[in-house]
Amino acid sequence: MKTHKIAVIPGDGIGKEVMPEGLRVLEAAARRFGIELDCTHFDWACAGYYLRHGQMMPSDWFETLKAYDAIYFGAVGWPDVVPDHISLWGSLLKFRRDFDQYVNLRPVRLMRGVPCPLAGKKQDDIDFYVVRENTEGEYSNVGGKMFEGTERELVLQESVFTRRGVDRILKFAFDLAQSRPKRHLTAATKSNGIAISMPYWDERLALMARQYLEVTWDKYHIDILAARFVLSPERFDVVVASNLFGDILSDLGPACAGTIGIAPSANLNPDRIFPSMFEPVHGSAPDIAGRNIANPTAMIWSGAMMLDFLGNGASRYRAAHDAIINAIETILSEGPRTPDMGGNADTSQVGTAIAAAL
Amino acid sequence: MKTHKIAVIPGDGIGKEVMPEGLRVLEAAARRFGIELDCTHFDWACAGYYLRHGQMMPSDWFETLKAYDAIYFGAVGWPDVVPDHISLWGSLLKFRRDFDQYVNLRPVRLMRGVPCPLAGKKQDDIDFYVVRENTEGEYSNVGGKMFEGTERELVLQESVFTRRGVDRILKFAFDLAQSRPKRHLTAATKSNGIAISMPYWDERLALMARQYLEVTWDKYHIDILAARFVLSPERFDVVVASNLFGDILSDLGPACAGTIGIAPSANLNPDRIFPSMFEPVHGSAPDIAGRNIANPTAMIWSGAMMLDFLGNGASRYRAAHDAIINAIETILSEGPRTPDMGGNADTSQVGTAIAAAL
Ligand SMILES: CC(C)[C@H](C(=O)O)[C@@H](O)C(=O)O
Ligand SMILES: CC(C)[C@H](C(=O)O)[C@@H](O)C(=O)O
Repeated sequence: MKTHKIAVIPGDGIGKEVMPEGLRVLEAAARRFGIELDCTHFDWACAGYYLRHGQMMPSDWFETLKAYDAIYFGAVGWPDVVPDHISLWGSLLKFRRDFDQYVNLRPVRLMRGVPCPLAGKKQDDIDFYVVRENTEGEYSNVGGKMFEGTERELVLQESVFTRRGVDRILKFAFDLAQSRPKRHLTAATKSNGIAISMPYWDERLALMARQYLEVTWDKYHIDILAARFVLSPERFDVVVASNLFGDILSDLGPACAGTIGIAPSANLNPDRIFPSMFEPVHGSAPDIAGRNIANPTAMIWSGAMMLDFLGNGASRYRAAHDAIINAIETILSEGPRTPDMGGNADTSQVGTAIAAAL
Repeated sequence: MKTHKIAVIPGDGIGKEVMPEGLRVLEAAARRFGIELDCTHFDWACAGYYLRHGQMMPSDWFETLKAYDAIYFGAVGWPDVVPDHISLWGSLLKFRRDFDQYVNLRPVRLMRGVPCPLAGKKQDDIDFYVVRENTEGEYSNVGGKMFEGTERELVLQESVFTRRGVDRILKFAFDLAQSRPKRHLTAATKSNGIAISMPYWDERLALMARQYLEVTWDKYHIDILAARFVLSPERFDVVVASNLFGDILSDLGPACAGTIGIAPSANLNPDRIFPSMFEPVHGSAPDIAGRNIANPTAMIWSGAMMLDFLGNGASRYRAAHDAIINAIETILSEGPRTPDMGGNADTSQVGTAIAAAL
């Protein structure tokens, strides 16, 4: 039996609080489904490694982590001490880019037991994926200032899209759509305002679509698409978007499904050359950190996605994934619940309950 | 009594259908409140000028329109015939930029008579403004392709932010916040991912805030801000954002308040050197054009904003604005309603009813 080597990076804030619960449930699932995991912990965070060394990770981080099958990541960021763009470009965004985790896969689902903030929507009305490009586009540290410190000061910020980067995310999204019952793909664009990159995105989309005759597709400008998430979420099946648009839609989608507090994500290197990374969509949430009240569900759900990906189609792993989701829904319906879900249980009580429900 | 010269551009699609209703209500309000309007029509649209001349407007458009006090604009775009980026950069976006309409002001309000798509929200819970930068930022046609037609193909897209552009929109938003009872400002950012321009935006924000000690403020990354529009719209008072983020938020906000079908906007040149422009947030909607079923409310509400701006504080104009809003709410509550609002009245019936309610 293969042993999967997992790099565990709890990070900062509530990342440190939800990680033990994620691991608790992973271990329970591994035991029940006969999966072997070997976890190694790393304290690469603002409040850990950074304070001692002035950088987020040791210089040989790449070689170190490359030996793992997956990264299980809590959250990073402690803005009062380290500016976000330093902590995030020094870890999370480095992983995504250097390990070529070019797919950020984010399920948006109205879970059993979660009240929907949208009036009149039922559980099956919200069940889709956001497929977000995860390495290029608008997320860029290329650009600069001119006439600095004067009235004429101006800032140039570059977005960079490559054919390779655009085509592979579109392909992943079309493949996913093809595998689902509805076989529908929606693309985000903004070619009417962002006049160079977005028409290019549209062009590649139209070309890719020709190879998927069984998939129906449409595209919307990001503004109206955001509006439609609220007004008609039942229309969506697979939504593909650039890095920035995917970022926005994958917070908005979970909000429409009740809360971003439980939303998971998978940063995938589908070619499996580098480790993929699994992390909650929520961040380190400094405002509630240290009180053991954070909801561990997103961390746990991300763990389920990790097992599924590690299994690469094997039914035992798929079953483990489904069992975790089921346990999550049982606890969301019956409690215990953390305060964000209207309860008064703490982080470990919820984690323990989900592990037990398994 | 001053006569206000209005350039009327109905444009394409439903723009042509809602404009007569906008004018009908404007005329009724002008008569009742003793305001003198002198309207001139222009057929600058895809389905008009463009078909005959291969461009959206005559070359002397700037000099022609400069002589007007305001532009009353329907919608432009007929994507089956003219690509959006050509029609929009050839008219709407040119007006915004060349007439330095640097503020795009968009009220987000849950109107009496409109069912809210968010569960459990009452009328007063949604009542804020999106103040969108309207001339620079992510809306740019600067950039280009490299290695075109090969596997290595890549696209660079420039965003351009100037100190002048950022400071003046922040100032407008803080001034507006200061004039409102809640005195609260929220800024959109994404400095954790967009690493050059957005930290600059944050920096200017912090500086500007120092001059407004009575205004409380906060800022959110655009992803979580979009989520909060859905989860807690009652938190917002004035929301200031870059061109792209403001575009997204000003479709999302109205969706949370029921429909983007009734949302108005004002493209302001606050210095009054150039004409300001008033237009519905919805576009030309080719899918429903030609059937006289479009909702004219956004066009009418935009007309109310135009009167208010033309009055420059004068109480007669303010009263005319308020009377139109009131008439809109009466018809939204009591009907007649267009199909998008669940009724079966046509565009002119709704326009006529609002004019009569006035
Ligand atoms: C039509 C389009 C270019 C425009 C924009 O993005 O500004 C529209 O969406 C708007 O919000 O006025
Ligand atoms: C923390 C931040 C850089 C990150 C992103 O924008 O990608 C987060 O919002 C996410 O969605 O994973």
